[in-house]
Amino acid sequence: MTAPTPPQAPRNDLPGRIMAREMAEQPAVLRRILEQGAPGIRQTAQEIAARRPRFVLLTARGTSDNAALYAKYLLEIRLGLPCGLTSMSTTTAYGARPDLTDVLVVTVSQSGGSPDLVASTRAAREAGAITLAVTNNPDSPLAGVSEYHLDIMAGPEKALPATKTYTASLLALYLFVEGLRGGDGAAAKALPDLAEQLLARQDEIRALASRYRFAERMVITSRGYGYPTAKEAALKLMETSYIPALSYSGADLLHGPLAMVDNVSPVIAVVTDGKGGEALQPVLDRLRGRGADLVVIGPRGQVEQASAGFVLPTEGVAEELQPVLEIIPLQLLAYEVTIARGQDPDAPRALAKVTETR
Amino acid sequence: MTAPTPPQAPRNDLPGRIMAREMAEQPAVLRRILEQGAPGIRQTAQEIAARRPRFVLLTARGTSDNAALYAKYLLEIRLGLPCGLTSMSTTTAYGARPDLTDVLVVTVSQSGGSPDLVASTRAAREAGAITLAVTNNPDSPLAGVSEYHLDIMAGPEKALPATKTYTASLLALYLFVEGLRGGDGAAAKALPDLAEQLLARQDEIRALASRYRFAERMVITSRGYGYPTAKEAALKLMETSYIPALSYSGADLLHGPLAMVDNVSPVIAVVTDGKGGEALQPVLDRLRGRGADLVVIGPRGQVEQASAGFVLPTEGVAEELQPVLEIIPLQLLAYEVTIARGQDPDAPRALAKVTETR
Repeated sequence: MTAPTPPQAPRNDLPGRIMAREMAEQPAVLRRILEQGAPGIRQTAQEIAARRPRFVLLTARGTSDNAALYAKYLLEIRLGLPCGLTSMSTTTAYGARPDLTDVLVVTVSQSGGSPDLVASTRAAREAGAITLAVTNNPDSPLAGVSEYHLDIMAGPEKALPATKTYTASLLALYLFVEGLRGGDGAAAKALPDLAEQLLARQDEIRALASRYRFAERMVITSRGYGYPTAKEAALKLMETSYIPALSYSGADLLHGPLAMVDNVSPVIAVVTDGKGGEALQPVLDRLRGRGADLVVIGPRGQVEQASAGFVLPTEGVAEELQPVLEIIPLQLLAYEVTIARGQDPDAPRALAKVTETR
Repeated sequence: MTAPTPPQAPRNDLPGRIMAREMAEQPAVLRRILEQGAPGIRQTAQEIAARRPRFVLLTARGTSDNAALYAKYLLEIRLGLPCGLTSMSTTTAYGARPDLTDVLVVTVSQSGGSPDLVASTRAAREAGAITLAVTNNPDSPLAGVSEYHLDIMAGPEKALPATKTYTASLLALYLFVEGLRGGDGAAAKALPDLAEQLLARQDEIRALASRYRFAERMVITSRGYGYPTAKEAALKLMETSYIPALSYSGADLLHGPLAMVDNVSPVIAVVTDGKGGEALQPVLDRLRGRGADLVVIGPRGQVEQASAGFVLPTEGVAEELQPVLEIIPLQLLAYEVTIARGQDPDAPRALAKVTETR
C-alpha cells in the first residue's frame, strides 16, 4: 500500500513543503512498521525478555527524548519495570561508570549519529548493560555499537522538524514493549487508517492556527500517556514558529507555573481518553476557573467543554496507543501557525538536522 | 549562630518581604544543617548503604523536583548508581506496581503533605523499595509513610516561591550521598559564609534585573551539575514574575529550541567551574555567534566573555557543591525582576503553598 496523496498536495516552491510531505507519509510509515517491521521487533523483544532486565534506562535528545518518555510510561505501566531517563553528561562529561548489570539501556535517535549518544551507549555496554538502539538508520554508528537494534523504517527525513520519525519511534517502541510482555501488538492495526483520517482534517487545524497568529507564549499540558505528546508539541511549535511553548504535566503545572497562565496565555491540553485524561480533570477545572483560553485535543466530550479544540477518534483505541495519533494534529498546528506567521517550517533558523552534541 | 541581617532589611509593608526574609535566612539554615543535622544524615546514609541499593528512583514535584535532579547527578557521578525520576502518574493514575527490590526510592517535598507523593511512596514501600523522605517537616504524612527521613531543618517557609527549602534540600542530599560513599561532607563547610557573601551583593542583581523589565521570554541553560539550577531559576522566574522562562540542558538546546533564540531572546547561562561548564562551551560559542543577549552566572573568566553577568566565588568550591550557591543570585534576580514589574513575589496569583495534587 502506498501513501495517500495529502488533501492539499504541497507545491514544490512553497515554504513547508518538505515537512508537509513527511507528515503526509505517516500512515504509510505506520503500515510499513506493522507489516514489515513487527516480526523482527517481536523477535528482538523476546531475546531481550529472556535476559530478564530489572531496570531500564532510556537515552535520547530532542524529539527522540519525547519518544523515550512514552516508552518509559509503557514500561512502567504495562510491564512494571522501573525506568529512568539518562542524564547523558554524567557519562560524557563526568565519566561516570555505573554498574549496569541487569539494566536495559534503550537509546533512541532518528539519525543514530550524534557522538554523545554513541559514546554513552558504548560506555553502557562496557558497564554490563543490555543495549538496544532505536533508529531510522540500521547502518548508523549508534546501531553499530548497540547489541540490539530496532529500525523505525520511516525513510529519509529531510525537514528539520522531525514528524514521521516521531510517530514511527512511538509505534516501534509500543510493539517492542508488547513483545516484552509476550503480546502481538494487534491493537495497533487501526492506527494507519486513523492517522490518515486525521491528516485529512488539515482545514480544521488551519482555523485553529489563526488563534495563535500573535501568541507570545503557549502552555501545553497533559498527564500520563499524553504527557510526551505535550512535550513534543511544545518542541515542534518552538522549533518551527519560535513561540515559547512551555509543557508541563498537569500536576507540575499546579506546582508553580500556573501563576503564568491567565486569559492572555493560551493553553492547549492533550486529554487522553483513559486514566491520564481523568487525572487531568482537576487541572482543566482550575484552568477554566482562571479564564484560560483552553484548547483541548481529545475526545468529543472534553472538546465541547473547552474554548475550542480538535476531536480525536479515541473510540476503541487503547489509551497507550493514542499518543501515536494525538501528536498529528499538533504537528499540523505547528506547521500552520508557522505558515501563518510567514516563516518556513522546513528550515528553522540555527538548526542542523543531525545535531552533533558531545 | 543566628541569621545575619540582610543588607537591605525588608520593610514589613513591602511586597516580597517574606521571600526576602527567607532568602536571607539561607546562610543560617545551611549552618544549622552542617552543625546539627549532619550526624543524623550520615547515620541514615550508613544504614541505607548497608542495604546496598542497586538503583535509585527520585520522586518530587516543582522546586523539590529540581533538588531531586541534583541528587540524581550526585548519585550517578559520585556513586555510579543508575537513577530515574519517577513519573508519578504511573502509580497514582495507572496503578503500576513495579518490583522495587534493591531500589532506593527518595521522595523530596518541603511540606511532606502532597497526597500523590504520600500514595506513591507508600506504594513503593509495599513494592519492596527502601524509602527515604526528604522534607522540612518530620511530622508530615510523607515522613510517616517512609522508612527513613531526612529533616532539611529550614524552619517554616511562608513565601509561595520556595527558596531556603531548596538550598537546604540540596545540602541535605549532598551530605546524604557523601554519607553513602563513607565521606564526611567536610567540603561543604565553606557554604554558609559564601552564601552570605552572595546575599550581600543584591545591588548587583538589581542592576541586572533592570535588563529584564520588559522581557517577554527567557531561556536559561546549563549542563551537568548546573542544570538543576537552570530549571529551578526558570521556575522561580515564572512563578514570581510570570515571564515564560524555558530551561534546557545545553545539549538539548541545540536539538531544537535554539531556533527560538536570537538577539531579542535573553539567555542566562549557569556555568559551573568544572566539567559541566567545560561541556557547555560549544553552546556558549553558538549563542554568542547568534548575537544572543547572554548573561552568565559563573566564574569571572566566563562572565567577562558574556554580555553581562554575575561572578560566583567558585575558587576552592567543588563543582558538585556549586549548585547550593549559584541559585542564590537567581533567586534574587526573580525577586528583583518581579519588584521591578510592580508585582509581589510573595503571592503569585493562583498558587497555594501546599499543592495537593493526586
